[in-house]
Amino acid sequence: QTGVYGFQVSVLQPATAVTHIELHRPEKRNAMNKAFWREMVECFTQIAEDPDCRVVVVSGAGDVFTAGIDLMDMASEVLQPEGDDMARTSWNMRRIIAKYQETFSVIERCPKPVVVAVQGACVGGGVDLITACDIRLCTQDAWFQVKEVDIGLAADVGTLQRLPKVIGSRSLVNELALTARKMYADEAKESGLVSRVFPDKEAMLAGALEMAGEIAGRSPVAVQGTKVNLIYSRDHSVAEGLNYMATWNMSMLQTEDVMKSAAASMEKKSPKTITFSKL
Amino acid sequence: QTGVYGFQVSVLQPATAVTHIELHRPEKRNAMNKAFWREMVECFTQIAEDPDCRVVVVSGAGDVFTAGIDLMDMASEVLQPEGDDMARTSWNMRRIIAKYQETFSVIERCPKPVVVAVQGACVGGGVDLITACDIRLCTQDAWFQVKEVDIGLAADVGTLQRLPKVIGSRSLVNELALTARKMYADEAKESGLVSRVFPDKEAMLAGALEMAGEIAGRSPVAVQGTKVNLIYSRDHSVAEGLNYMATWNMSMLQTEDVMKSAAASMEKKSPKTITFSKL
Amino acid sequence: QTGVYGFQVSVLQPATAVTHIELHRPEKRNAMNKAFWREMVECFTQIAEDPDCRVVVVSGAGDVFTAGIDLMDMASEVLQPEGDDMARTSWNMRRIIAKYQETFSVIERCPKPVVVAVQGACVGGGVDLITACDIRLCTQDAWFQVKEVDIGLAADVGTLQRLPKVIGSRSLVNELALTARKMYADEAKESGLVSRVFPDKEAMLAGALEMAGEIAGRSPVAVQGTKVNLIYSRDHSVAEGLNYMATWNMSMLQTEDVMKSAAASMEKKSPKTITFSKL
Amino acid sequence: QTGVYGFQVSVLQPATAVTHIELHRPEKRNAMNKAFWREMVECFTQIAEDPDCRVVVVSGAGDVFTAGIDLMDMASEVLQPEGDDMARTSWNMRRIIAKYQETFSVIERCPKPVVVAVQGACVGGGVDLITACDIRLCTQDAWFQVKEVDIGLAADVGTLQRLPKVIGSRSLVNELALTARKMYADEAKESGLVSRVFPDKEAMLAGALEMAGEIAGRSPVAVQGTKVNLIYSRDHSVAEGLNYMATWNMSMLQTEDVMKSAAASMEKKSPKTITFSKL
Amino acid sequence: QTGVYGFQVSVLQPATAVTHIELHRPEKRNAMNKAFWREMVECFTQIAEDPDCRVVVVSGAGDVFTAGIDLMDMASEVLQPEGDDMARTSWNMRRIIAKYQETFSVIERCPKPVVVAVQGACVGGGVDLITACDIRLCTQDAWFQVKEVDIGLAADVGTLQRLPKVIGSRSLVNELALTARKMYADEAKESGLVSRVFPDKEAMLAGALEMAGEIAGRSPVAVQGTKVNLIYSRDHSVAEGLNYMATWNMSMLQTEDVMKSAAASMEKKSPKTITFSKL
Amino acid sequence: QTGVYGFQVSVLQPATAVTHIELHRPEKRNAMNKAFWREMVECFTQIAEDPDCRVVVVSGAGDVFTAGIDLMDMASEVLQPEGDDMARTSWNMRRIIAKYQETFSVIERCPKPVVVAVQGACVGGGVDLITACDIRLCTQDAWFQVKEVDIGLAADVGTLQRLPKVIGSRSLVNELALTARKMYADEAKESGLVSRVFPDKEAMLAGALEMAGEIAGRSPVAVQGTKVNLIYSRDHSVAEGLNYMATWNMSMLQTEDVMKSAAASMEKKSPKTITFSKL
Repeated sequence: QTGVYGFQVSVLQPATAVTHIELHRPEKRNAMNKAFWREMVECFTQIAEDPDCRVVVVSGAGDVFTAGIDLMDMASEVLQPEGDDMARTSWNMRRIIAKYQETFSVIERCPKPVVVAVQGACVGGGVDLITACDIRLCTQDAWFQVKEVDIGLAADVGTLQRLPKVIGSRSLVNELALTARKMYADEAKESGLVSRVFPDKEAMLAGALEMAGEIAGRSPVAVQGTKVNLIYSRDHSVAEGLNYMATWNMSMLQTEDVMKSAAASMEKKSPKTITFSKL
Repeated sequence: QTGVYGFQVSVLQPATAVTHIELHRPEKRNAMNKAFWREMVECFTQIAEDPDCRVVVVSGAGDVFTAGIDLMDMASEVLQPEGDDMARTSWNMRRIIAKYQETFSVIERCPKPVVVAVQGACVGGGVDLITACDIRLCTQDAWFQVKEVDIGLAADVGTLQRLPKVIGSRSLVNELALTARKMYADEAKESGLVSRVFPDKEAMLAGALEMAGEIAGRSPVAVQGTKVNLIYSRDHSVAEGLNYMATWNMSMLQTEDVMKSAAASMEKKSPKTITFSKL
Repeated sequence: QTGVYGFQVSVLQPATAVTHIELHRPEKRNAMNKAFWREMVECFTQIAEDPDCRVVVVSGAGDVFTAGIDLMDMASEVLQPEGDDMARTSWNMRRIIAKYQETFSVIERCPKPVVVAVQGACVGGGVDLITACDIRLCTQDAWFQVKEVDIGLAADVGTLQRLPKVIGSRSLVNELALTARKMYADEAKESGLVSRVFPDKEAMLAGALEMAGEIAGRSPVAVQGTKVNLIYSRDHSVAEGLNYMATWNMSMLQTEDVMKSAAASMEKKSPKTITFSKL
Repeated sequence: QTGVYGFQVSVLQPATAVTHIELHRPEKRNAMNKAFWREMVECFTQIAEDPDCRVVVVSGAGDVFTAGIDLMDMASEVLQPEGDDMARTSWNMRRIIAKYQETFSVIERCPKPVVVAVQGACVGGGVDLITACDIRLCTQDAWFQVKEVDIGLAADVGTLQRLPKVIGSRSLVNELALTARKMYADEAKESGLVSRVFPDKEAMLAGALEMAGEIAGRSPVAVQGTKVNLIYSRDHSVAEGLNYMATWNMSMLQTEDVMKSAAASMEKKSPKTITFSKL
Repeated sequence: QTGVYGFQVSVLQPATAVTHIELHRPEKRNAMNKAFWREMVECFTQIAEDPDCRVVVVSGAGDVFTAGIDLMDMASEVLQPEGDDMARTSWNMRRIIAKYQETFSVIERCPKPVVVAVQGACVGGGVDLITACDIRLCTQDAWFQVKEVDIGLAADVGTLQRLPKVIGSRSLVNELALTARKMYADEAKESGLVSRVFPDKEAMLAGALEMAGEIAGRSPVAVQGTKVNLIYSRDHSVAEGLNYMATWNMSMLQTEDVMKSAAASMEKKSPKTITFSKL
Repeated sequence: QTGVYGFQVSVLQPATAVTHIELHRPEKRNAMNKAFWREMVECFTQIAEDPDCRVVVVSGAGDVFTAGIDLMDMASEVLQPEGDDMARTSWNMRRIIAKYQETFSVIERCPKPVVVAVQGACVGGGVDLITACDIRLCTQDAWFQVKEVDIGLAADVGTLQRLPKVIGSRSLVNELALTARKMYADEAKESGLVSRVFPDKEAMLAGALEMAGEIAGRSPVAVQGTKVNLIYSRDHSVAEGLNYMATWNMSMLQTEDVMKSAAASMEKKSPKTITFSKL
């Protein structure tokens, strides 16, 4: 079942309330071309509003997750903006960068959790993409590369902002970003970039869907409120985060989901047995 | 020697300048009832002011650290606030949440370091509690569970704010908070949630008290200034943290403890041999 | 080839665009005396402006990296500031602290990446120093000690601000800073303080220089822009970091280095084969 | 010449590079209905991208600027969001509020300066609107009213956030917002809400267009960079604002407009005699 | 009717839902002694929780508002804290300062608006007090003096933090704080410190109570939400303020007060005719 | 007595502890050339450390305060930075801007209050300069002009960051910065840019020196602590400002100046009769 977003991104619904987005350009190692960026924004904008979706899985078709940006396809747009003088060229360049940053920020703003599953290569723009997701999984053969310094630029669509906030070793972040060396699955697990490593892609996708099922089976008020507040807290002091949390939950705790869930809990039933209203 | 805070929290002084707080309701797996929350605030408010206390150890009586909130005892207060309309109910709910947040924030505001020792289960509110402590230890049989999504709510008394700031893998934090899965001792150590794992509770308490002794034996001006500035720095930029630090130490460096400690250091004596004035 | 900064800090150029700074007072275990602090600032101020330097390696002569501050040499200045009354003494103390903080902040403000290589002891001020560097390496025999509480003070030239932002386990940071216990190479690697451990000093220096060579061989516009934005992002929210990044790159992407690098990349050549203009 | 945005908002071009937006529903005192909010966003989104527009004037058709929100038309949408329970209703309410906040934030994000000219009443949503503009003018018969407390709510689309940052007396802001009293032209001028008062609407529009002409006649790189940085600085410390400014101008100062303008200045010519490239 | 807070602060209820707090030590020009500070905290803590109070008026008995701190009564506590050495004395001093800061911060944290009415002198601690209130009124004979530099200290219980945020001229703020000169009623009005000046105390109190009546007659959900968000917005960027506001109002807009108020508004009735539920 | 800073800036000491800096290039209307910028930094760097200076007055020789930047002298440096490509030119441009920003930031960082006295024109860079001072005075014939848009650039050495924080009307700030219109003395007073207007330069200088004398006669611990905390508070929330203030004063309140000042106050003597130790 191929989804509605054209050739680059296919959208499937493998289980109730679970949306599976597949980067689908395997003949080009899922390289990100102009259509990709546009479709990702459309896709997540729609998912954010779709009450039938409670969790998202992102993966790549074929043997590798993504080779990163498709330089051939995008060079004209990205590297040669118009402008009558230096200031005007810079002005247009800034808008282009901001537009591409937005492609991944929509993933973060989408209140539904996003699980990303990486096999083989995850290069350049791929790292920008996965650091904007909530949970990262990979196969034993996966590797990650912050490639941008190799093509003469500081990564500008999210890696430098988010990578240091998703893994715990700043020395490692700096090494990866300044030398463009590859990091393999074991180091990705040790450093905390991914929280699980699977033997192969099939096992990984099964694991990703199982995890997505766990999330989809819980109260969407609880789950989406958790994502929203985790991201808020990342960018604020603890005191600010607590204040926002209290203001958030003063209404959200009045959901019927709490009563339903508490009742199930006392009866030793899984929350997945409960029917929650859509959100 | 049972302490003054009634049935839920016992307070002991196992060594000079060391206060040991024990969650003491083992027949209910140390579940947190209304009395618990009130006693914790009273307890830490007093400790913060007590010049005879330089460090705190927190542990749980019996086989488990805590089963988390005692839903039976607290449901009426937490889940059914009064209010003539939706806004008024929300207003009261917000005050209740803020009050419970405060229970753990007092631990953080107490300038004396708090070492927490976890055996068996540490569930729900237990995770909120331990992330507000300074040093976390556990036994080999310990497990941790961010339980809140299972009962239909986003955790709102500290876990979502503090957990991402105490461990290095954001993917893991998100996984734990969104799926409510258990994390065992080994993963807790690898991820940095705890800094030491002990074979059993007895060894852990011995280790906790030894560590507390190390802290209690050092200059309270140095130790408490270190805690205050570590917490300040967590919530500020490096430049802001340095500025505050310089302003803090412009008086604190004038303590006689520096001279005493420097002298002991040159004589190759342990700082624990020094008698420091109370703070 | 001994450099220009006198007795405490020697400056060498082991390879094109690579500057090697060696703490050079091995007979005193590279203890930091008054001259050291002054020379470090002069040294990094010059490096920051030097177009022939693209990356810096810092190491220590002899068997240990550094024993930390030289209390004998510095006590008169650091511990006994002048002042007619308490306020005036404090005022002068604050200026002294700010001056020493600056010694290490210049490392951070220098846009060229700094790789630090640690063997043997790295004590007190040594930890302040290495946390202000970008990439940390060590030998198998290295150990690290946040020593300040042992001499009666809260560390005030950077450790309390930067250490929690370079490693992922807050429990470990607190334990180290509050108990002054030693941390050895394995734990330093697991916790993310260092990103690589080498069997001995010789291997480590070779590794450090090889890594420096990788960095020096890439576009200085890309590399230095990466460092500047990584540090900016550490102290800002993701949204703020992205905004700054876009404003930075609106001009920096117009460098000829991108074209040169993209061309090399398409020809499967290493970026190290490219001749970049100086920056 | 009526513009493209339908019945509520007319768009005219009274002079080169000047766009004039008129709230155009005089028979309803320019009350803001559903169509208004949608058209404003469309209108400013287009203006932000239009190289032929360098400055915007906003005014209201007829005798009053605006009576504020059209409760009749909007109540169903604003006050009765759907939702199966309290949490879901709140969730939807939050999205609606955010959408209406966006209506005025687009004015602020549009890099072209916006001059707003107020005659007669400016009530409720009208105050939200004008505080998001850059320059405020009014007639002698104008009055302003933060009306929201009169209908039982705290103003939530910008007044409480922006009014205190556009006028200097916090006591006055609080009085206006808490009592809903009217403020007349003289007090608006004294308090700094408006920077000029005109005798009547005709004189005010002439003044607004003259001011717009002054702005449109200057370098768009200079003018729009000024607006962007003024807004950035409002929300940041002085040090942060200076850092951003330097990063902004490192490219923008390389515009040919500086040379053109400097040359005109030396020849004592007005900048309005220069032909600037579009931006 | 003298209130419950003893000799220094009397509490009256001059009208429904209006609480009037009078500094009541006229024989000492309402100088602030130890009892005053304690009673203010108790008083506002109770008011914050009291559903029968919707607005507060603060004034001073006799001819002057307050002569500021009662140095005689307070010197022993404020100026001579205990402590075995410099650091310990400073530590205790910091706690004392924080405690006195709290005295006025409780006014700000109280969600009910506070109108303060000043006649005659308002000196030193009086300025700290009134800048923590929401609306400031004065008589024609009032004068204000930031007195602290005259007694050798930088004002530390709120004036330096709040005065620049309540009036628009920073040059004036600096002049007042650095020279301790008096500012009279006219300049206080021009600068925006007060929003109204009355001919004498009687007229001012009548005006204050009328204004309090206006506030008390409106929806407490609207009024208190307005105060909370105005203070939040002062300390945050516009974008942060809007985000918080939307999260606040997602529940508060669901109050029945909106329907009641909208209905009254359509019937051209004053909101004061409505009976609102208590909050 | 002409000072040491060469031709552009003369330094005098008209009274004890008062330093008078005069822009001294009247034949060029005190236009700011390369030497000016360098001398200002040297001058304020020295003043900041000089215990014999407690307050600074800045004025301009001749009929006008300053015509702003001397374009002829500075164009080569400011407008044509070197660089092999666009990125490198931008990099150098950014360093130049940062250097000139620093020229005025040193005024702000100097803990001694700075009173600036303006007659005649204050154009362009002159506005950047005066907004970095603490107290602004002017003559009746003074006028102010944010000139930068007239020469094709957004003001980048302080005006856009500081002007909105020193005057209360944002509409006026925007009008001045976007149209480059002149503002005369009366409007400068009404808007709060200056806190006093004098009939002519002689009266203004007398007034400035009298005010400086008032400041110099008070405790330098009190005065300089006041300046430091006023600037800190501008850039932080009230809560942050209070926290910093308490940490500052925990030592500064222990000055002997408080006792001396309190004693003088009780004896009804002016603080100017006290001999304070140097700071």
